[in-house]
Amino acid sequence: MKKADIGLIGLAVMGQNLVLNMADNGFKVAVYNRSAQKTDDFIAGEAKDRSIVGTKGIKAFCDSLSSPRKVMLMVKAGEVVDHFIELLMPHLDKGDVVIDGGNSLFSDTQRRTVSCEAKGILFLGIGVSGGEEGARLGPSIMPGGNQKGWGLVKGIFQAIAARVEQDICCQWVGEGGAGHYVKMVHNGIEYGDMQLICEAYHILRDVLQLEPVELAGIFNEWNQGDLNSYLIEITADILKAQENGEWLGDKVLDTAGQKGTGKWTGINALEMGVPLTLIGEAVFARYLSSLKETRIEAAKTFAAPAYELDIDKADLIEAVRDALFASKIISYTQGFMLMKAAASQYQWNLAYGDIALMWRGGCIIRSQFLGDIKAAYDNNPELENLLLDGYFQNAIVKAQDGWRKALVTAVQAGVPVPAMSSALSFYDGFRTEKLPANLLQAQRDYFGAHTYERTDKPRGEFFHSDWKQLAKPD
Amino acid sequence: MKKADIGLIGLAVMGQNLVLNMADNGFKVAVYNRSAQKTDDFIAGEAKDRSIVGTKGIKAFCDSLSSPRKVMLMVKAGEVVDHFIELLMPHLDKGDVVIDGGNSLFSDTQRRTVSCEAKGILFLGIGVSGGEEGARLGPSIMPGGNQKGWGLVKGIFQAIAARVEQDICCQWVGEGGAGHYVKMVHNGIEYGDMQLICEAYHILRDVLQLEPVELAGIFNEWNQGDLNSYLIEITADILKAQENGEWLGDKVLDTAGQKGTGKWTGINALEMGVPLTLIGEAVFARYLSSLKETRIEAAKTFAAPAYELDIDKADLIEAVRDALFASKIISYTQGFMLMKAAASQYQWNLAYGDIALMWRGGCIIRSQFLGDIKAAYDNNPELENLLLDGYFQNAIVKAQDGWRKALVTAVQAGVPVPAMSSALSFYDGFRTEKLPANLLQAQRDYFGAHTYERTDKPRGEFFHSDWKQLAKPD
Repeated sequence: MKKADIGLIGLAVMGQNLVLNMADNGFKVAVYNRSAQKTDDFIAGEAKDRSIVGTKGIKAFCDSLSSPRKVMLMVKAGEVVDHFIELLMPHLDKGDVVIDGGNSLFSDTQRRTVSCEAKGILFLGIGVSGGEEGARLGPSIMPGGNQKGWGLVKGIFQAIAARVEQDICCQWVGEGGAGHYVKMVHNGIEYGDMQLICEAYHILRDVLQLEPVELAGIFNEWNQGDLNSYLIEITADILKAQENGEWLGDKVLDTAGQKGTGKWTGINALEMGVPLTLIGEAVFARYLSSLKETRIEAAKTFAAPAYELDIDKADLIEAVRDALFASKIISYTQGFMLMKAAASQYQWNLAYGDIALMWRGGCIIRSQFLGDIKAAYDNNPELENLLLDGYFQNAIVKAQDGWRKALVTAVQAGVPVPAMSSALSFYDGFRTEKLPANLLQAQRDYFGAHTYERTDKPRGEFFHSDWKQLAKPD
Repeated sequence: MKKADIGLIGLAVMGQNLVLNMADNGFKVAVYNRSAQKTDDFIAGEAKDRSIVGTKGIKAFCDSLSSPRKVMLMVKAGEVVDHFIELLMPHLDKGDVVIDGGNSLFSDTQRRTVSCEAKGILFLGIGVSGGEEGARLGPSIMPGGNQKGWGLVKGIFQAIAARVEQDICCQWVGEGGAGHYVKMVHNGIEYGDMQLICEAYHILRDVLQLEPVELAGIFNEWNQGDLNSYLIEITADILKAQENGEWLGDKVLDTAGQKGTGKWTGINALEMGVPLTLIGEAVFARYLSSLKETRIEAAKTFAAPAYELDIDKADLIEAVRDALFASKIISYTQGFMLMKAAASQYQWNLAYGDIALMWRGGCIIRSQFLGDIKAAYDNNPELENLLLDGYFQNAIVKAQDGWRKALVTAVQAGVPVPAMSSALSFYDGFRTEKLPANLLQAQRDYFGAHTYERTDKPRGEFFHSDWKQLAKPD
């Protein structure tokens, strides 16, 4: 019997759908799952009459693969990945490829790439985004790890990935943990996008007291313009969804869950020294939402501020759109700043245009907007900062009036807008030549003799003053 | 010769000043420094004619101490601490006490407490704050680690610590890394306080175009009221400081430095799931300030928004004061939320009133405000959240009009206010019973089948819907 082109371990929904996608694209796939029942069910069910082979036991699984073997893990991130690598090792030969397609922490992937290499195994960590549907029909795939290993599996992954016109949303990212790193930033940006949509929804819902169906219409209209994206599209669907004649979205409890990748992005930004404020606020907003009992208590105690709306409905809707769009520009600017810092820190040669392309289709944050980011980096691969690209420059300048109006309304009305206002503060800080950090440096020098640099002296010269003494009148 | 009561290793300024403080309080202190020259200089200089003994070599240092020995390390946090513990070990006896007074990461202190205990050594990690002057005249001291060890050195540290009336700003915090943890949060709050002052200064400086001396007058006035604090006091000094007839503060380069403890606080909050937004923004603001070259570029490209000031000068000054005060309440609320989460996670029995007392005097964030926090926890040691205390409730409600006005002005004028606006969004989120996270949970369920809870069902029951289908008209 012809051996399989690739094998996949872990038959949860994402794993199953990737296998079906591979089979659809002409590959023969061997599968293994810890619980054999799941393998049997899959083989008898959706995998029936396809080029998919069920196996029992790791040895049989490895024996069923053509050489060099290609083994993909779709298992829980963390220790489970290490466990399966250990189980696989005795049955692999030098030059075989192991691919981790889960949401692993990039530093784990760095470590695994190195430790596998020492044993002659080519390890890859690839980010896969697009949810269940993406996995089945064409996900966004962000591969990193051992570049030789990538050469051996590229054909398979590029065949199953999403496409935008002729472009394939699966391009080599970089060595070691680069693929999982980029996936982590993708997930962080997803947190930001979702929080921004929630804030837009919150302002319109509470200030204008709009019904869900009217809100759905607004998001649907936004989806026709430069906000066109998967998340805006599903937001319109959600707001239209009814159950027994009632709006289902209104029945959903407002406590946000999370799986930790947004948190990792925030932690990494703090470690790297990059001001990733918007994603940080988005993660914190989920934490605050989870304090439901305390919020119910507090809502009884702290009344909303009295205010009079001094902007008309159509203008406010347009202003909120501007706020959402401008804030989104800031969020992606910050995300690309973070990747740039990581590239320097970990010595990855990241192709930012390719990353934008990979996110352009297949994944949760897919959008027209990412096409504009790709264009910016195609136009200038050395672009220092996304905000300094002509298109985004014009876009944010055009949006800033509305952005400020929307935030003024939110501040007056008492609607929390942590991500949008964090974005505006970043923008205003970014374009301010003289920030108040002179005072902060003086304070540090005053109480801790930390010294300071001067505007009238070259950088790198440090001064200390006796501020208390200098404050005294002559 | 009478042996020394305590020994101190590391004669940088903080170490020297602590030694002098101990000697002033009647203790005999042995000192050791890696470079012997520094020891000689100190002994011949400031230590002369005091009960301070210089030693050469770790053995001689340990031999000079009375039993049980008490050895305090004032060395660079990190590996240097481990290095000295290793050097000391052969010369210590069971029951001796080693005290790390540096800014160590609390998890390192946890580890060292355990590993020393295994060898019979009682390890303490204590946070010391107050800068050079505090160390000399009375710092705030936050001790944690081995409680038996604390009993042996308590007399010394309580003697040298700051006092507020009869209260001593040095009280037992908790086991393991608790002392260094509380010190870390202290430093995070210090980042927040400094950033808030910078934002207040920035609004008044740029919107009202005030001269430093006029700004100094405003801070000086604020220092007479409920903002009374060390940092406000030194801000007034800094703004008054002149050099050759020019304002020295204006000559300081606006790129903020940092030593990492604020970053640790933000990372810990992300890990613990606590919405510590204000300190997070304060850390990120320092990062943004450091991008001076990019900001100079951006300032040329992005003009400030056109706006008309529609608030008079005195009202704006008062509004900014309200914004600073209300934001400060939020920052401390978040900091105490974080400590509460840590207490639960690490099984520390933190006495929040004692912590407020320790910060009330001696340290950089010392303020009248901390007396009010102490009163809140004295009043109700089980207080769920600082914002739910009567005093702070009233204070924030009273300040909220001005707070919102100040932020509206900043948003319109293009002055970045990341910490103040983050604080307002937290407040508005905290007091909102129904956040927009219902939409976020619906999105997660739509694209990833993550399920959701319902407002009309008990917590803990999870639902999944086919949103796309339910969005279709019947």
